[in-house]
Amino acid sequence: MIKLYYAVNTCALASHIVLEETGAEYSTVRISFASNEQRSPEYLAINPKGRVPAMVTDRGILSETPAMLAFIAQSYPEAGLAPLDNPFAFAQVQAFNSYLCSTVHVAHAHRMRGRRWADDPAAIAEMQRKVPQSVAACFDLIERDMLKGPWVMGEAYTICDPYLFTLANWLEGDGVDLTRLPRVTAHRRRTSERPAVQKAIAEELA
Amino acid sequence: MIKLYYAVNTCALASHIVLEETGAEYSTVRISFASNEQRSPEYLAINPKGRVPAMVTDRGILSETPAMLAFIAQSYPEAGLAPLDNPFAFAQVQAFNSYLCSTVHVAHAHRMRGRRWADDPAAIAEMQRKVPQSVAACFDLIERDMLKGPWVMGEAYTICDPYLFTLANWLEGDGVDLTRLPRVTAHRRRTSERPAVQKAIAEELA
Repeated sequence: MIKLYYAVNTCALASHIVLEETGAEYSTVRISFASNEQRSPEYLAINPKGRVPAMVTDRGILSETPAMLAFIAQSYPEAGLAPLDNPFAFAQVQAFNSYLCSTVHVAHAHRMRGRRWADDPAAIAEMQRKVPQSVAACFDLIERDMLKGPWVMGEAYTICDPYLFTLANWLEGDGVDLTRLPRVTAHRRRTSERPAVQKAIAEELA
Repeated sequence: MIKLYYAVNTCALASHIVLEETGAEYSTVRISFASNEQRSPEYLAINPKGRVPAMVTDRGILSETPAMLAFIAQSYPEAGLAPLDNPFAFAQVQAFNSYLCSTVHVAHAHRMRGRRWADDPAAIAEMQRKVPQSVAACFDLIERDMLKGPWVMGEAYTICDPYLFTLANWLEGDGVDLTRLPRVTAHRRRTSERPAVQKAIAEELA
């Protein structure tokens, strides 16, 4: 049985939703960033990166959201969460999720995690100042060129959707004006109405 | 036939090497960052992100290195460049490449591309100052926990290896002391000896 390590208000929500969508049995373990639990020896033995999410499976441990989401989709093919029999369509799914992971999440991370890339408080404050602009530029591209609608890949709900939903939930906190993103906002609302999404969020906030 | 868009000294080299490893026919197009060609209307029509790599295939256009590498491996299964029939092992490959893309490459990018995340020259200089430390921390983790040896995933050469090789070529420029990374350095040398690697590099520098 899969065990998911997560922290609240992190990208781990995407994996949590996708697990819930499969209907599979799984368990979750909450890691407290407030008490720096992600740096504890116990957690570092699971994920030496000291980050969430991580997932313990019967085969071993996985981290990195794009890889985890694809693994869940491949492990539960009957849930139909990725175009598993079509390498090009699967690559499009992976490319979208890679963009979220390596560009969109990274732009967002300069608001709260600036110390990864600078020590001087003035530089960290300067990074924070640019977050509304850099995150908005990412979402403008998604709005205009990447989100096919109604779901990210078109008619089929895939592992791209909970991941986009998760990062789009950070837009207000990042200071991005939602009125420039009507399609992303509608996607977020549409995704929020799914029972699996509501159940995963309720469990994390409980 | 696949057409790869690349620029010299970028992560596009990983896709170039993997194409070469397959033995497939492909062509390449060099994009000049010096003349800002990646922002030209012609290139933005191919990749609206204005970045390399991008790949035109018979099915459509792909970007994002982890997705491109997996697509090439799936398109040429006889080359044996990924564990395609083993979802967990495939996820481990994808997790490694996702870490390179979203954490290692991002740490490196703060040396030359700081303007993505700050405008103030003092903040950009402060980011550059931390690059040797943040990139070294990433490679310490690879050295200690992730590189199984002799190849990233153990006995089998996979799509992880040319990608790690590509990013490890930036270590000296990033100011990282190679003596702390004997296993990464040996992996880089081992990879550099492969004919496909030498051919791809020679073509990019020609």
